[in-house]
This record gives sequence, C-alpha cells and structure tokens, in this order.
Amino acid sequence: MKTLRIIVIGGVAAGASFAARARRLSETAQITIIERGPDVSFANCGLPYHIGGEIPERRTLAVQTEASLKAMLNLDVRTLSEATFIDRAAKRVLVRNLRNGEEEWLAYDKLMLSPGAAPVFPSLPGIDDPRVFTLRNLQDMDRIAAASEAGKHAVIAGAGFIGLEMAEQLYRKGLSVEIVQISHQVLSLLDAKLAGLLEDELSKNNIGLHLGNQITRFEGRENKLLCHLSSGTVLETDLVVMSIGVQPESALAQAAGLQLGEKGHIAVSAFMQTSDPDIYAAGDVVETSERTMGGQIAVPLGGPANRQGRVAADHLFLKEKARPYPGSLGTSIVRVFEMAAGVTGWNEKGLKKAGIDYETVTVTDSHHASYYPGAKPLTLKIFWARDDGMLLGAQAAGQEGVDKRLDVMATAIAAGMNIEDLCHLELAYAPPFGSAKDVVNIAGFAATNMQDELVNMVHEFPAASADVQLLDVRGKALSMAQPVPGAINIPLTSLRNSMDRLDPGKPVVIFCSIGKNSYFASRVLLQHGFDAKSLAGGAFINKERKAAPVT
Amino acid sequence: MKTLRIIVIGGVAAGASFAARARRLSETAQITIIERGPDVSFANCGLPYHIGGEIPERRTLAVQTEASLKAMLNLDVRTLSEATFIDRAAKRVLVRNLRNGEEEWLAYDKLMLSPGAAPVFPSLPGIDDPRVFTLRNLQDMDRIAAASEAGKHAVIAGAGFIGLEMAEQLYRKGLSVEIVQISHQVLSLLDAKLAGLLEDELSKNNIGLHLGNQITRFEGRENKLLCHLSSGTVLETDLVVMSIGVQPESALAQAAGLQLGEKGHIAVSAFMQTSDPDIYAAGDVVETSERTMGGQIAVPLGGPANRQGRVAADHLFLKEKARPYPGSLGTSIVRVFEMAAGVTGWNEKGLKKAGIDYETVTVTDSHHASYYPGAKPLTLKIFWARDDGMLLGAQAAGQEGVDKRLDVMATAIAAGMNIEDLCHLELAYAPPFGSAKDVVNIAGFAATNMQDELVNMVHEFPAASADVQLLDVRGKALSMAQPVPGAINIPLTSLRNSMDRLDPGKPVVIFCSIGKNSYFASRVLLQHGFDAKSLAGGAFINKERKAAPVT
Repeated sequence: MKTLRIIVIGGVAAGASFAARARRLSETAQITIIERGPDVSFANCGLPYHIGGEIPERRTLAVQTEASLKAMLNLDVRTLSEATFIDRAAKRVLVRNLRNGEEEWLAYDKLMLSPGAAPVFPSLPGIDDPRVFTLRNLQDMDRIAAASEAGKHAVIAGAGFIGLEMAEQLYRKGLSVEIVQISHQVLSLLDAKLAGLLEDELSKNNIGLHLGNQITRFEGRENKLLCHLSSGTVLETDLVVMSIGVQPESALAQAAGLQLGEKGHIAVSAFMQTSDPDIYAAGDVVETSERTMGGQIAVPLGGPANRQGRVAADHLFLKEKARPYPGSLGTSIVRVFEMAAGVTGWNEKGLKKAGIDYETVTVTDSHHASYYPGAKPLTLKIFWARDDGMLLGAQAAGQEGVDKRLDVMATAIAAGMNIEDLCHLELAYAPPFGSAKDVVNIAGFAATNMQDELVNMVHEFPAASADVQLLDVRGKALSMAQPVPGAINIPLTSLRNSMDRLDPGKPVVIFCSIGKNSYFASRVLLQHGFDAKSLAGGAFINKERKAAPVT
Repeated sequence: MKTLRIIVIGGVAAGASFAARARRLSETAQITIIERGPDVSFANCGLPYHIGGEIPERRTLAVQTEASLKAMLNLDVRTLSEATFIDRAAKRVLVRNLRNGEEEWLAYDKLMLSPGAAPVFPSLPGIDDPRVFTLRNLQDMDRIAAASEAGKHAVIAGAGFIGLEMAEQLYRKGLSVEIVQISHQVLSLLDAKLAGLLEDELSKNNIGLHLGNQITRFEGRENKLLCHLSSGTVLETDLVVMSIGVQPESALAQAAGLQLGEKGHIAVSAFMQTSDPDIYAAGDVVETSERTMGGQIAVPLGGPANRQGRVAADHLFLKEKARPYPGSLGTSIVRVFEMAAGVTGWNEKGLKKAGIDYETVTVTDSHHASYYPGAKPLTLKIFWARDDGMLLGAQAAGQEGVDKRLDVMATAIAAGMNIEDLCHLELAYAPPFGSAKDVVNIAGFAATNMQDELVNMVHEFPAASADVQLLDVRGKALSMAQPVPGAINIPLTSLRNSMDRLDPGKPVVIFCSIGKNSYFASRVLLQHGFDAKSLAGGAFINKERKAAPVT
C-alpha cells in the first residue's frame, strides 16, 4: 500500500490536534508539520499570564517540541519553515527554510491548512517603533516581558480578551496601564451593561480607560513613546500592546485559489474540507456554520480549533464513520482581576443586526446559597426567539461561577433547549456549590413569566416624566443610601398597605436592587389594576456608567 | 367571587415555594401554612455548616419568619401546628396547636401536602439515649451543637450527604469522628472507585471509617455511650448522629386514602396532583417520574422540592398554561474536606439492577489548563445506552470544578444528548477556567472511540495470569516509584522502538496514570496487530482500596 503523505501547515492548536489524531488513526501515514515559528503546539492562551508572572515557568507553555512529537507521535516537525506556495495541480507545497533561505517542494496526498490568525497591525504613522508590540507567540511574549521589566507605563490598544488579560498582567508587574478602546465599552462581545461591571473592576484597579477612542499615530521620543488618540489626548508610555483583533492568515489559501468567506476566512464543509477536497483547513483561519441558526461564524479560539482539527482527521481516516463539526457558538470567557465575564451564542448587537425577533432578560442572584459565606452576585443575561422560546445566547459576569453558568447555557443552547427547559435544569446543589434555585433556573422563571405575560419588563430606567411613576421597592435604608432621583420609595413589605400613595391612573415602573423584588411588587400591583412594569436586573446593572478616571 | 382557601401542610422548601408562587399568581387567595415545627422556610441544607461554625450566624438559616411571610406575601403561617387528619369528603383538615393541644378544623378548597421526609430512626436497643441525634431542623442542630461543645468524640451512622457533611463539621469543631456505614463504600450513590477518592480524603483527615458495618445496639454509660457494631467492634463516644436515610412523611396522606408509591411516597401527576385532584403534594414526600426513561424516582433534595412547589401553584392558577414537571435526575453533590463528588442521572448499580444495556467510561484530566497553576485532577465517569449512545448518567469527583461538570452533564442528559454531542460542547475556556478540550469533551472522545471500536477498554486491572501481558506505559521514574506487580514498563515515548519486548501472540492490557497514554499506546499496538486493551481511568482510579485505619 502506498504511504499516505500528509502535510500540515501550522502546528499550534488545530494543526497539532489534527496531526495527533491522524497518527492515532494511522500508524503508517507520513505526517509532516510545517511551522513558521520556532515552536509547535505551545499554549498560546497562556502567554499573557507568563508576562505577569502568574504562570512562572516559561517551559510549561512549550507543551511539545520537535523531539517530543517525534517520540510520542512519530511526526516530522519542521519549525522555522514557511510554506510559501501550494501547487494544487501537482499536489505539492513550496517550503522555505527560514534558517538558511533554502526552498524545497514537498509532495502531499492530503493537506491541512492551520496557519491561524495574525494580530491586526494597522499602518499608523510611527507604529514601527520597537516599543509597539503584538502578542502571538512565545517570542512576542519574551519581548513584551523584557520591555515591561524596564517600563513604568503601558498602553493597551483594544479591550478584547488579550487586551484585558494584558492590562491585568502588566498591572501585576507594577506598570501603570491605560486601555484605548474604539467602542464605548470594553469587550465588545458583551452587552454594554455587563461590560460596565468589568469597567468598574478595571477602574477599581486603577486601569485607565479611554473608551470611544483610538490611537491615530505614534511619536517616538528618546525615552518615551507618545500615543496620539483620536480625542486629542496624548499618552506618554514605555510600551504599547496592539490587541485590536486578529485576521485570518488565508493569503496562501487565496493564492491557491481556495474559496474564502466574506471576511477572508477559508470556507470549509462540515468535515473541514476546503473547496479542494484534498485540502482541509481548521482553526482561526476558517469560518464555520453558526450552531443555532446555521449562518457563518469565525471563532478564533482554542477550543473550536482543537475540535476542528480532530474532525478533519476523522473525515480523512474514519470515512463514513466520521462525524461533522456541528458549528460554533463562540463561547468565551475572560478574567479581569476579581471579575470574570463571558458569552455564548448570540449577543444583543448581533441579534439586532441580523434582524432576529428576540426577547431578553437579565437576572442577578447569588452564585451559591446566599446563607453560605462568600456568596457573590452573579449576573446572567439570556436571549431567546420570541416566537418559540428557543435559546439563542447568554452572557454572564461576576466574581465566581461565571464559567459554570456559561457552560450550562452553552450546553442548553447546543441542545436546542428553550426557556421552559431552563426552569427545570436540575443542577448540583449543596451550600458551597449552588442554590436550590440556581440563577440559570431563575433566568428561566423570568423568561417564562414574560412569555406568560405575568410580568412586563423594561430594560432601562424610564426617562423622568410626569407621566410615569418610578417606584423603588428596596428597603428604606438602602433607598436612602443609594437614592435614585424622582423615585417613590415603598419597601416591598409595606406595598399592600401603601398602595394609596400611587396614582392608579399612571403607569408604574418598579425597581429594586437586582430585579427580584420589583417583579414581586409588579405582581401585586398588576393584580390591583395598575399598569406596572419591572426593571430587569435592577439598580445593580442599570446605572449610568462613566469611563474610569485616567491616572 | 368566592375566596379560594388554600392550606399548605409543611412550610419548608416545597411548601414555602408553592405558597410564594401561589401568592404571586393570586392576591386574593387565602393561603394558610400549617407547620409542625417552630420555623418555616429555613435553610435546612445549611444545618451541618452551622454546627461546624462554617456558617457562623444562626439567623442566616432562618430565611423567613411568620411575620416576614405575612409582610412579603400576606401568608397566614401557623407554626407549632400539626395537621392530624384530612377529611377529604368535607374538604377540611384537623389541626392541633402544639402549644396548647387545642384542635380546630380548617376548611380548604385546595390542599398542598409538603411535610417532607423524616430521618430513619431504627428501633435499636438503647437508641433512645439522649446522646443519639438526628438532624432535620434548627432545634436538632442546636442540640447537636451543644453536645459537640462538650464532646470529644462522635460517631456518624451513615455516610450519605448529611453523614459526610456532619463528619467534616464535627471534625472542624475538634472532635474525633468515626463513620459507620452499612455498605462497603461511602456515598452509595457513587460508584465504588469514585467513592474511594472520598474515602482517601476522609482518611487523610483522620476520620475513622467502619465500612460494611452497622450499629446493632447502644449502651449508655455515665460518661460515654457505647456503640456496638455488627463486626463486634465497640466504639466509645460522646454523641451519635443517625444519618442512615430518610423516609417520606406520608402517614397523613395514607390515612386520607391517597395513592402511594411502592416505597411509601405520595404518588403524583406531572402537575403534582395526588389521586385527589384537590390535593397537591411536592418535595421529599413524593415520587415523580425519572427524567431519562420515565420510571419512578424519589429525590429528597431542595432543588426538586422548590421547583415542584412552583409547578403545583402554576397548575392551580395558570390552568392550561401550566407546564409539567419533567421528572428528576437526582443531581446531587457533597463536599468532603478538600474534595467534592456528586452524581446526576443513573449510576452503575441502578443500571445493572434495572437490566439496562449500558456502556461506561471513566476519564481523569485537569480541571483547568494544566499549564496554569493550581490544576487539579478531575475524574468524570459517564454512562450511555449501548445501542444509541444516549446519555444516562454521570458522576464526578475532584478538588475543583466538580459542580460545573455535573451541571453540564445534568443539562446534557436532560436535553437527551448522546455521547457524540459531548465531543462538541463548546465550553468556556481561558486558562483559569477550563481547557481547550474539557474533561467533558474528553469523556465524549473516549466514549465515541469505544463506539467506533477504536479502543477496547477494560475497567479493572487484569488478574495476574500467564495469558495476559500487563503493559505500563508511564515514565520510568513514576513506574519505579509506584510499581504495579507483574507489569512490563515501556514508556509511551519508547513504544514504537520496543515492541519486540511484547509477545504478539498474547493479549496486552495497557495502563498509565489516568488512562490517556494507555489509550494512545493501544492505538499503536492495535495497528501493529496486537490484541491491546486500555485500562479506563488508569492507576489513579483503579487501585486496591482499604478502609482507613481507625484512630
């Protein structure tokens, strides 16, 4: 039997995963990994954490080496080697050895393209200053670590996952850190109110925030680098990390005439085949189907990359037994100091843009039994299709238990569950771990209450107006300590006896701390004939938020 | 309109939940709660934690009072009142005031039975000694707390949830603790190997374990209480907590002629109606449908109780809009010192007893990225129907992240997912929270590999025999440090070059630490013509276990 020759271009997440699975399915295939960088299969998600010293040992990030992959998997790994051309007709790849510039043609029977995505690096004046960095590999990490040893101040351009992680880690190292973010919130994947919780946390930790702003040019001085912002502000810094996004490294695929998606990702089948059936692609370079409604989505994260690599290997060797990739949800999470936040599935911006008829609710409750010490507020926002209640997306923020609720929601969404199903998820409860009614159940209760028209929710404080009564049902002490202008305070416990203080002819918008007591109050008032609405998420999540003062 | 009169018998979890939801749906109903004890709606799951001081404030456990329920929900709560007879024909309940012995008839239109379940208290000689306790309410808690202040030694009869929690909390208070457990493992809901991890943890913390043993009689001495065990051992102690199980308090229902289940629970419809449509029942006293296959199951836990109470209220007031209770999985969790363990859905004993054709695999992996500091081993065992791969149950044990995986599995099982679906759950990954391939995904990979016949698993070390080769593919150092008798050590990295050390004519059973490298090795050997099997879960979970030495 002829030996099957497989070439893998890019050996980090998707490529390494593909190669490992391919070897498990075939001892005889000849598997060659072409990797442009000096390392294969390293832990790229860990890079920021080593810079801040949270992962102290650099070697723990270099998961595999050429030698270990040879010993474990009999893979032929060629680092510092760049694939520069794919000759599909002759089924061969031109590979340049970056050590000596020599080129050679390697023949393949099957090819895997997993070159990843590169940090966006806009052509701004002065950006080539050596104090401007991006973070993609171990060498980038070493360079930023070295610069941060000497530096006192850092600017982070872009408040996505890497930007937020870098801000925290550089702060840990003792630097003053300022973030410049083009949109008016951090972490654009989140909806603004939950992002606000992260912004509070950043401010609490003295991270400067320049929202609605971007760097327009850099100006290198001898000891400092100046960052000119669109607002006119000039930041004086020692180093800049550009983390404004990534773009798929699809030039090689494009030159080979493979089909690309609208945003330049490689288009693939559910089995990760490109438009050339002998060429697979996986990881940050591809777009796949979106899991709930089947559109196209690109999720440049490690989990999907690893599983896509595996799907491709299965398709190659298991044939009809292979199982398709079911699509991506875009589940993601980031830790920001003591807080964490993340999303799965659709967010509100996406739903609006796609014109989907959705409904949403935000709930906050304790991450475990409130009577057990250490309970922290956890905020969960969910989205569902208005017509049938099918879950479309979720996002969460809090100090503890955010990952758990995102995982439960990701599972529920992948399963095609609806809001009714959330009510009866039977989650693990003992005081240190959860509540008899978990915040996920409570989100289901709130959503079905809306569906059943037992409650009318509003999602913002009403504008001050003589036509609407704003009712504060929090306790007196809290109401006085955190007053909301124009609100009438009637604690929930006094409501039945004090209804005469409300005008039955005017709508009432009710709020409390987290949206639970205001719902209870709305049930009382509705049954007494009032036009009563409850503010979802309460004062905890609905507040005017400002950018942090810049230090 | 005639006022609807509702009587609720038992006002803790299900009853309080029912009453609160009923009030939200009807401001006009007259709702009376009859509670035998002095407290309503207290946090019964928190009782052990107050005894040990982990929940320092007793008042945090008394969630509601008669006054607060009146103010919040306009409920008429009568504590220290016992319902002694239900006259269904006349629709009235005889209630005895336990303060003064007076009796009165209360008329109802709808009745809710939520009296809960009582600790089993077997009629053993000497059990009436005042040093023998059970734990159900705040007064029991106070009594045990007082006894433990003075005591130096405690015996816990029964190693279920309450028994394990009590053991830990009394140990925290400085007592020597010994557990007497009738079965040969702690926490019978778990399968034995995972229970073994808890047993190790108990032993590490000097908790004595008497497995396969029970107390046959008590003998009160002046300063000590003697517990005579079936093994002949006599334990000398200061207090005993009986936590060998609970039984439903269905005597009142039975006397009223309501239909009961085989084990004495009240039988209910999916809307929590008893055989009398004007009488609902919910909580520990009922049995419901089992969620995966529809048999009967009783789950005496807070989560189901709360949600069942809500379902009943919805049925009463929302009529055709009401949604049925979908059945219980029995999701549960317990913390034992630094460890946690729990189950959801079917366990192996149950599947065997029910004669269900199932398959199972046990995997262990890090609870978050292994390169991020603090990664702990997490063991997950899953069960699925052999014919179609449908998930039937799961159990997990480890130091961190057990609750999250149980919740994901509970959601997946409730959704009717199968083992393929587990492979592609897109869970939240950042180094502090998870892994690119979570242990849940890995369980899916292992299970589908079994289904695809890519691996043959064994679930025990093979008996020593000249007919089977036992191959240890761990590294040399570990293999020498933790030798397994009769095993040939060939580290995975040397396997391809050392296959000549194996006899191709004899089966090979391969093991490693956690079952991953042994799977990898089995792929190599299978493709080279060997009859190779991999030990699921590895040496970590497959070891001879003994009861802890008794201190």
